[in-house]
Amino acid sequence: VNAPERILPDIQAQIDHRSMAINRVGVKSMLHPLKVSSATGEIVHTVAHADMYVGLPPDQKGTHMSRFVEILQDFDGAIDHPGMHALMLAMLQRLEARSGWIELRFPYFIRKAAPVSGLSSLLDYHVTMRAQMDRDASDLSFLSGSPSANGFQLTVKVQVPVTSLCPCSKEISDYGAHNQRSHVTITAELSAPVSLEELVGMAEDEASCELYGLLKRQDEKYVTERAYDNPKFVEDLVRDVAGRLDADDRVRAYVVESENFESIHNHSAYALIENHKH
Amino acid sequence: VNAPERILPDIQAQIDHRSMAINRVGVKSMLHPLKVSSATGEIVHTVAHADMYVGLPPDQKGTHMSRFVEILQDFDGAIDHPGMHALMLAMLQRLEARSGWIELRFPYFIRKAAPVSGLSSLLDYHVTMRAQMDRDASDLSFLSGSPSANGFQLTVKVQVPVTSLCPCSKEISDYGAHNQRSHVTITAELSAPVSLEELVGMAEDEASCELYGLLKRQDEKYVTERAYDNPKFVEDLVRDVAGRLDADDRVRAYVVESENFESIHNHSAYALIENHKH
Amino acid sequence: VNAPERILPDIQAQIDHRSMAINRVGVKSMLHPLKVSSATGEIVHTVAHADMYVGLPPDQKGTHMSRFVEILQDFDGAIDHPGMHALMLAMLQRLEARSGWIELRFPYFIRKAAPVSGLSSLLDYHVTMRAQMDRDASDLSFLSGSPSANGFQLTVKVQVPVTSLCPCSKEISDYGAHNQRSHVTITAELSAPVSLEELVGMAEDEASCELYGLLKRQDEKYVTERAYDNPKFVEDLVRDVAGRLDADDRVRAYVVESENFESIHNHSAYALIENHKH
Amino acid sequence: VNAPERILPDIQAQIDHRSMAINRVGVKSMLHPLKVSSATGEIVHTVAHADMYVGLPPDQKGTHMSRFVEILQDFDGAIDHPGMHALMLAMLQRLEARSGWIELRFPYFIRKAAPVSGLSSLLDYHVTMRAQMDRDASDLSFLSGSPSANGFQLTVKVQVPVTSLCPCSKEISDYGAHNQRSHVTITAELSAPVSLEELVGMAEDEASCELYGLLKRQDEKYVTERAYDNPKFVEDLVRDVAGRLDADDRVRAYVVESENFESIHNHSAYALIENHKH
Repeated sequence: VNAPERILPDIQAQIDHRSMAINRVGVKSMLHPLKVSSATGEIVHTVAHADMYVGLPPDQKGTHMSRFVEILQDFDGAIDHPGMHALMLAMLQRLEARSGWIELRFPYFIRKAAPVSGLSSLLDYHVTMRAQMDRDASDLSFLSGSPSANGFQLTVKVQVPVTSLCPCSKEISDYGAHNQRSHVTITAELSAPVSLEELVGMAEDEASCELYGLLKRQDEKYVTERAYDNPKFVEDLVRDVAGRLDADDRVRAYVVESENFESIHNHSAYALIENHKH
Repeated sequence: VNAPERILPDIQAQIDHRSMAINRVGVKSMLHPLKVSSATGEIVHTVAHADMYVGLPPDQKGTHMSRFVEILQDFDGAIDHPGMHALMLAMLQRLEARSGWIELRFPYFIRKAAPVSGLSSLLDYHVTMRAQMDRDASDLSFLSGSPSANGFQLTVKVQVPVTSLCPCSKEISDYGAHNQRSHVTITAELSAPVSLEELVGMAEDEASCELYGLLKRQDEKYVTERAYDNPKFVEDLVRDVAGRLDADDRVRAYVVESENFESIHNHSAYALIENHKH
Repeated sequence: VNAPERILPDIQAQIDHRSMAINRVGVKSMLHPLKVSSATGEIVHTVAHADMYVGLPPDQKGTHMSRFVEILQDFDGAIDHPGMHALMLAMLQRLEARSGWIELRFPYFIRKAAPVSGLSSLLDYHVTMRAQMDRDASDLSFLSGSPSANGFQLTVKVQVPVTSLCPCSKEISDYGAHNQRSHVTITAELSAPVSLEELVGMAEDEASCELYGLLKRQDEKYVTERAYDNPKFVEDLVRDVAGRLDADDRVRAYVVESENFESIHNHSAYALIENHKH
Repeated sequence: VNAPERILPDIQAQIDHRSMAINRVGVKSMLHPLKVSSATGEIVHTVAHADMYVGLPPDQKGTHMSRFVEILQDFDGAIDHPGMHALMLAMLQRLEARSGWIELRFPYFIRKAAPVSGLSSLLDYHVTMRAQMDRDASDLSFLSGSPSANGFQLTVKVQVPVTSLCPCSKEISDYGAHNQRSHVTITAELSAPVSLEELVGMAEDEASCELYGLLKRQDEKYVTERAYDNPKFVEDLVRDVAGRLDADDRVRAYVVESENFESIHNHSAYALIENHKH
C-alpha cells in the first residue's frame, strides 16, 4: 500500500444507511486461463469465465472489487473439489465475508477411443463448477474444515453432447429414423467428490450413442447401427440418466435435462427431472 | 384425424415401467411472432423464443410434441397477465396435464421522449414472461378460475439497459468519472398485474441515468450531467431498485440484479438482492 | 432546431486534418420492429438488428449519429427490394453522403403445409438484407433512379435450416443412417428482385428433406423416409444449390454454404461455393 | 488401416459428374486446446474454435473429414506465423489438396502492469488467425518454402477492448463526459511476422485509455483522468489506428473497426477503414 492509495478516500468502506443486505456482489464474466484436474490426476488446460461474489452486510456501502481479481490471479492450483474449497476460503478471508459464491464455466476435454478402430481423440464438454458457502457467525472452525463440512456446497454441471434417435420415427417408418445431436445436462450437488469423467459417462452410457471427435469408416458404421438399435425419446434420456443419479450416494440433489436439436424441426424437444434426495 | 394417423402406432402413449415422473417435457426455443399488450393497451409486435412444457406422470412414456406447436400457433391473443393464463389453460387441457410451464423471451419496445428536445424514439428491452401452474388433483375449478388463483403463478423478468457512473471514480479524480452501460434486471413474481412499463420505470428511475434511442446535443448535455450528478455503485443500483419492489404489494417475491459492463475493465461488476416476501 | 442546440458547439462538423476518408461510419446493432413484404405481398412483422453507415470524406471530423436513428424510426414502409432502395436514398440525403451501407438482420416466417396431413405451420429463417450504394460525384440523377441502377446493390442472405442425411453412413451400415439439422446459407447479390420464399425454396428443394414447425405421425413417417431416400453430403448440398443459382439470371453473384451439425461429432461439416458470374 | 476399413466402400472418393469445384470443404467449429507463442516466446495456453478447409476439384465427390481432425490433434507445436504455415502444409499434404483455409479463433492473454501501482494482471483479447494457401499446379517447391512465399497468406485479427470518451459530450457539458467500453478490431494481412502484442498495442495506444484486469484506487484515478484528457470519437479511433497500420511495412492490407457500446444508448457507434496497400 503506497502513499497515493492512503490519501484517496475509500468510498466503498463508508457506512450505508439503507439497512439492506446484498446477497451477492463481486465480479462477473472475468475470462481467465485455468488448470482442471482430470479423474486420473492429469492437468487439462482451459479458459474459464469466472463469477466471484460475496454477501455484503446491511451497513457496508460497497465491496472491494479489485480483491476478487487478485484472488483469482493468485490462485495457481488445479480446479477440482478441494481446489474450489481452497479458492472459496481465500475469497472469504480476503473479503472478510461470511458467505460466498464462485462459478467457473469452461470447456473441458476428455480423450476417448473410437469404438472399432480404437483411434484416440479429444471431445469437448461445457462444464460449470459452482461453489457456495454460508458459514455461521459463531463458527470459527471453518478455516481448518474440509470441503464436505462447514456450509460448503459444490454443484457441478456438465453439458454432454450425444446422439438421440427417435423411437417413434423408427417404428412408423419403413426404413431410417431421424436422429440428431442432443445436449444431456447433469447438474449435481455433491456430498463427496465425483469426477467430471464419471458424470459425463452417466450421460453418454444412456444416450442412443455417444459422440467422438474422430471416427473412421468402420467406426461410423458402428455408431450408426448402435443409435438405430438404441432409440430414445427425450423422456427416456432424462429418466435413464436420473436412474443413475438416484443410485449414487455422493449426489445429494440433481437436475437432469435433455435438449434434442430435432433434425426434422427448427426447435428443440426438451425434458427435465429434478430430485432433492433429503 | 385422418386414416394414416389411425393405423400408425402411438409409441408415446404406451405405458412406461420406470415409475419416474418427469417435471417438465415439451418444446424449447421455438421462434414465433407475437403480440404483446403495452400499459396503454397498444399492441407491440415482436418475435419470441417460446418454451412450453407439461409434467408427465410416471406411467406415461412420452408427451405429444406436435400439440404444443398447435397451441402456440392457434393462440392469437396478446401477451399480458390474462393472456399468459389463457395460453396455460389451453396447454393443460390439450395435453391433459396437471402442471405446466411456459416461458416466452422477446424484445419489447417502449416509446420515450428525449429529456430536453422531447424528440420521441423507441428503446428496446429484453423481457421474459414465465407462467407456471400446478393444480391439485381434486380441484376441478381451475377452468373457470382467474389468473390470480388456482396455482397459477406469473413471473416477469425485464432487462433494462441504463447508465451507471462510479462514485469512487468521481470522488478520487480531479475531473471526469468512468461510466458505462449496465443491465438492471428485475425478476418479479406477481400476485396482481404489473405492466412492463412500470417495471422498466423502477429500474430507470434508480439508475445514474436512463438510456434513449435518439438524443440531440442538448439532450446529450443533459444525460451527461445527470449521470455525473447521480453516481451509483452496482450495490446502490440493486438496493435502490429493491426498495421500490419492497414497497409494491403486487410483487410477491423478486430478484434484482445489476451487471455493469465496466468501461475500465474487460469484466463486469455485479450485484444481486433476492427477497421472498411471505 | 431550438435555442439550446444553436449555442452548443458542433464538434462533429469541424475540419479534420488527418486527410483520411472513413469507409463506413454510423450506428450498429440497433434493435427495431420491422415489416417485411412476403412474396405474395403480405406483411410479416419481425424485429431487426440494423446497421446503418455512410462514407465520410477526409476533411470531416465526424458524422451525425442521431440522424441514422431518425431515418430508421421515420421509415414506415415494408422491407423488400424497393424498400431497401428508399431507405438508402433517405439516408444518403439526410447525411449528405455519397456512399452508404445498410444491413438488416431479422427472423422471417414462412407458412408451410405438412407433407401428408397438409397441416399448416410457420417456419423461421434468419435473413440478412444488405444494401450498398456508391454514387459517382458527377452523377446527380440518382434521386430519380430505380433500385437497379445508379450504383445501388442489394445482397440477400437466407439461412435455411434443413435435414441432411449422410450417404456414406447409409451405404456402409446394415440399417439406419446418421442425419442432422444443417444450415444451408445462400448469399445472393441481385440484379432484379428475388423473393425470400424463392431463395428459401432453392435450399429446401435440394436438401435431404426440408423442416416443418408441425408434423403429425404420417408426416413424420414421410420426412424420415424422404431423407433416407435422398442422402446428401455437405458437398452435394452446396453443389446442388449452386446449380440452381447458376441458372437464375437475376443472381449476379452468390455464395452458398452448408453447415451440418453432425449428430455423430461435436463439430460441423462445412462446404462453400462462391461464384461471381460477370 | 485394418481389415474392416478396406472392405467398406469409399463413397467420398467416387467420381462426381456435376463438374463443379468446391472452394472450401472441411470441418468447422471444432473446439480444441491450443498453445500460442507470445512476443517473448512464452507459451499461452488457450482453447480455440478451429475451421479447416481445402478446395475440392470438380471431379471428386467428397473430402475425407476425419483427416482434418487427425491433423489438428497431431499438431503439438505453438501457434504463430511459422506454426500456421506448418499446419497448412500438413493439411494440404494429408488431404492431397492444392488450396486450403485454416481459421483459429481463441482468447489470448497479455500480462499488463497497472499504470500507477504497477500491479500485474492478465487482460483477455479475442484473436482470429486465418491462413490461406493457393499453390500453383506446376510449382512443386512449396514444401520447402518459407511462410512468406508460395501463395501462403496469413491474416491476424485482434479485438481489443478499450475505453472511449466522447469529445462532444465533454465539450458541451459543464462537467463529466460519457464514456464506455469499445472494441477496436484490427484485421491485418501480414507480409512478415507481427506479434499479437504489437497489434494490441497499436489499438491501446490510440484509445482514450486502455483497460486493465486489476486497478487500485490510484490507478482508477489515473485511468479516469487519462480518458477525460484524451477524448476520441469512433471516427478518431479508426483514423488513428489506421495511421499506425499505414506506417508499418509488414502489413500488406488491413481493416480497422471500432464499435463503441454507447453508455447513453442501447446501440453502438461504429466506424471502419480498410486499406489494401498495393
